[in-house]
This record gives sequence, C-alpha cells and structure tokens, in this order.
Amino acid sequence: MAIQKLIEGIIQKKSVLCVGLDPVVNQLPEVLKEEIKASGCTLEAAGKAILNFNKAIIDEIFDLVHVVKPQSAYYEQLGIPGIKAYEETIQYAKEKGLFVIGDIKRGDIGSTSAAYANGHIGEVDILGVKREVFSCDAITINPYLGDDSNKEFYKVANENDAMNFLLVKTSNPTSDQLQNLKAEDALVYEHVAKSIAKNLEDEILYEGYGRIGAVVGATYPEELKQIRKLIPNSYFLIPGYGAQGGTADAIVNGFDDKGLGAIVNSSRGIIFSYQKESSEMPYTHWIRQATVKANEDLNGALARAGKTNK
Amino acid sequence: MAIQKLIEGIIQKKSVLCVGLDPVVNQLPEVLKEEIKASGCTLEAAGKAILNFNKAIIDEIFDLVHVVKPQSAYYEQLGIPGIKAYEETIQYAKEKGLFVIGDIKRGDIGSTSAAYANGHIGEVDILGVKREVFSCDAITINPYLGDDSNKEFYKVANENDAMNFLLVKTSNPTSDQLQNLKAEDALVYEHVAKSIAKNLEDEILYEGYGRIGAVVGATYPEELKQIRKLIPNSYFLIPGYGAQGGTADAIVNGFDDKGLGAIVNSSRGIIFSYQKESSEMPYTHWIRQATVKANEDLNGALARAGKTNK
Repeated sequence: MAIQKLIEGIIQKKSVLCVGLDPVVNQLPEVLKEEIKASGCTLEAAGKAILNFNKAIIDEIFDLVHVVKPQSAYYEQLGIPGIKAYEETIQYAKEKGLFVIGDIKRGDIGSTSAAYANGHIGEVDILGVKREVFSCDAITINPYLGDDSNKEFYKVANENDAMNFLLVKTSNPTSDQLQNLKAEDALVYEHVAKSIAKNLEDEILYEGYGRIGAVVGATYPEELKQIRKLIPNSYFLIPGYGAQGGTADAIVNGFDDKGLGAIVNSSRGIIFSYQKESSEMPYTHWIRQATVKANEDLNGALARAGKTNK
Repeated sequence: MAIQKLIEGIIQKKSVLCVGLDPVVNQLPEVLKEEIKASGCTLEAAGKAILNFNKAIIDEIFDLVHVVKPQSAYYEQLGIPGIKAYEETIQYAKEKGLFVIGDIKRGDIGSTSAAYANGHIGEVDILGVKREVFSCDAITINPYLGDDSNKEFYKVANENDAMNFLLVKTSNPTSDQLQNLKAEDALVYEHVAKSIAKNLEDEILYEGYGRIGAVVGATYPEELKQIRKLIPNSYFLIPGYGAQGGTADAIVNGFDDKGLGAIVNSSRGIIFSYQKESSEMPYTHWIRQATVKANEDLNGALARAGKTNK
C-alpha cells in the first residue's frame, strides 16, 4: 500500500523531511556548470547535468530521508532532455527505495485528468498493452475543476496503489486571493479540505491515513492547525519550510501525537545549501549537512511538542 | 503582437473555431492502429502515430481554421515519445501559420510558474544562452494559486509576445463546486475574472483585446454572457462545444458585435468525426467535413445574432 510505504519509511529513517528536487540550471555547482558550458549550453547538456546533480543528491541522502519531490516545471523548461532527466530521476530514486512525489499540480476535465493520472501514477493502455510511464508513488493535483477532475486521479491511484496530494492551502504569498475567500459557511480552502474528507470516507486507512493527501503551506501555521482538524485522515505535504520562511515550530501543528501525518518539503534550503558555504568541500557534503540539520530541526520541534513515535 | 496574429487569422479565415488536438490512442483511425500494433504497441510507436495523425489533420484543415490546441495530457501519458509528438505538433502547426495554444493548465508558486512559462511560451536561460523550448503562441493557466503565479506567466508573455488564457469557468460538470461558490460580494469565478480585468489595465490592446485571455465553458451560457461583460478586453477560449454539449447559439454571447472576442474549441467532434461514418473515404475527409460544418454552424449562429465582421 502506497500510504504504508510512505509511513514505514518515515518511521524507519526517523525523518519527516521531503527533499524537493528543483534543479535550477543557473544555480548548479560550478563543476556541473562547466560541463554544460563545455557542451555549448544545449538543452541536452543541461538535462544531463541536472540528472547527474539529482543522482549525486540521492546517493548522498537516501539513507537520511524517505521522500523526494521533483518539481516538473524545472524539467519541462528544458524540453525533452529535461523531461528525460525527470523520468530517470524518478526511476533512480525508486531504485534507492525512496518514495517519489511528482510535483505536477495537474487538473483538467475528467477524461483529461484520467490521461494525466495514467501517465504519472498509473499505466497507459496502448491498444490493450499496459505500459507504465512516469510511475511516481504520488503526485500533486489542483482542485480548481472540482471532483470530476479529482476523482479520476483518486480512481487511478486506487487501481495502481499510488497517492495524490490535493492543493488545499498553498505556501505562496497570494494564496489567500482565492483560497481564503469566505464562501458561504467556509473559506474556499476549507471547501477543498471537506471534499477530501468526503472522498476519504470509503478509503482503507493505514495508521489512520488514506490515499488522498493535502498540500498545506508551512507559511500559514494557523491554517495548518485548522486544516489538520478538518481532515484528520489526510497525510499532509507541507511546502514552504526553510527558504520560503516556514519554521519547524510552526509546522508541528500539521502532525498527529505520534509525529506522523505530515512530510515537510525543503528544496532550495537543501539542494543549493552549498552556495552559502565557502570551503573546498564537494557540494554533496553541504547537501548532506543541510539534510542532517533539517532532520534535527524538525525532529527537535516535534519532540518539544511531545509528538514522537514511541 | 500575439493578439494581432490571433485576430487577423480569425478574420482572414472567417473561422472562430479552435481544433483541439487530443489524440487518444485507442480512438485513432484503423490504419494508424495497425502501425502501432505492428511495432509492438510501444510508447514510441504510439508517439509516432499521434504525430502522424496530427500532421494529417493539420494538412487537411489549415486553410479552414486558424487556431489549434494540443492538450498536453494526451501526450504526457505516452512519456517522452508522446511529448516529442507534442513538441513536433506545435512546430508543424506554426510552420503552417496556425496559432497554437498549449492546453497545459499549469500554475504554481511564483518562481516555479516562471519556469513553466519560460518552457512553454518563453525562453529558458542556460548560463546566458537563451533557448526556445515548446514555443507555443499561448497556453492555458490555472488560477488557484493567485496572482503571484499568474503574473509570472503574464510577464513572460509580455517579454516574448505570447498569450495566456486563465481558467475562469470551466466546461466540466463539477466546475460549480469551487468556481460558483458565493464568496463575499461575488462568485469565485467572478473574482478570477476581476483579477484579469485588473491585470489587463496596463495592457496594449488590439481590436480592444489584450494578452490575457479567459477560459469559459460553452456548457454554461449564462455565465458566459455575464463574464463577457465583466472582462470586455479579454479574449475567450470556449471549450465544451460539440461533444460536451455546448451549442453554437449558446456560445454567441461570448462574442462582441463584430463577431470577435472568442474562439470556440472542438476536439473529439472534429478529430474523431470519422468514427460515426461508415464509408470507405479516408479519415481526413471526414475531419475536413466536420471542420467545414463546425465553421458553418458557428458562423451561422453569429450571423443570426447579428455579430459579424463588416
């Protein structure tokens, strides 16, 4: 079960961290930039470099964290070579036993959402032959089109033992513009949360959690606390920790008493951590250090809040 | 100017139709299915077949319509070979002078939306070297994250002379679930429409229209009429005509008095039109027939409503 794979790995590695693999070409380590320049700054060279970067990161941290989240935008912007790197990153991370969340934020009319779901967490049917494509353990999805979009993703997740994380309250500054509008008896994001609660009713739970997760930003701690109560059976993916400003102590409200119920994403704070360092150590050294620190920071905050797995 | 390219082509071809290129493998013509089977039903064979299908469609209709809209889900679900077909379809359509809307419905936090925008309507910067990637004339975007997502798309569109169509009121059955919530003084989709109006204030207009378009479903004619009044300077992309149930007479309210202001998408109704026919004519014959009929249907409804370009 996907939710079981998620939770067991979190417990085993004692890490609630999710490392966001958002490779921005112009911020890569010098050694990789040199390789890109030597190849004429082509899309192919950039795609190859971000794949090598991701593999180096994964090799360095797979014993410390259980979840990685490649952000599709940073691969798509490099065209086919970038998307090849996305595909191979997912495969490589899965080979290392990691739980992979494709951060794609898709959503469309029903039949089209089904196509996205088949491609990213299911199988595509080519005239009777089923083929896996990107094969993530989970993806993020966007709720603006409503449940006939969401349910196609849920259906494919159930058939293929995968998960979805529906955007509820995002971490960015203008997320209040639509998400916090007061609509009848509740805010818009609360309506989204309630739709998750309703769709989780028939789910088989593991440790109290079902296959429909929720994205709730670390940058809005009050909302986080409140949404935790609204959907107690939904695992949270919490972005916005670190570079975007969310603190570990603000995040503990996303967790249950056993220290489960959420994973906390950090992208730039981990993968570009070497930029703040001046020593001659390889960049992977600083990435490992940043991962260790983030684990300590998050586990420390959970311990202070009395939320630990006994 | 992108909006000028859009409008001039519509006037010249006397067509407000947008043909949706949504190639579902299992619905392809027999001749293409046979080729896929002969190659072992691989992703590569499917990708090649949908590209050939699209090229045959474009060859048949490029003198009749000005706008095509490939839906990224149907390409992504075939992995890299599918996305190659997406890329080459865009290039081929542009070579034939068509206006290409990538139906990607992306939206994310600011920096990530910028990456999507660079990849799909702009240029990616690889260590100082700028490269075009998918290079659509326009894309569709999702408003759930608010203006710090939307504005990154607007910015890249302005710098690269492209357009965006923001989802306002989508054509699917559950679009009312979030979009029609009454939030303070207006429905959620009206808040989205108002954000377009605000962001259009500083835009240079052509024939009264700016670079920020709106997606408004044909299946909701009352909303269409009302949104037209709310954002008079926004070009509409109207999905849901034909297979989804929207009629030409329901759609005229999306247009201005000169018969401009909107394009009407039909996907399955055009590209799979041969499935309803029993004769031995090639599939392209029926696709051309369906395109001619759709143009007549839409132009007839506009003429009856007195909305024609003099």
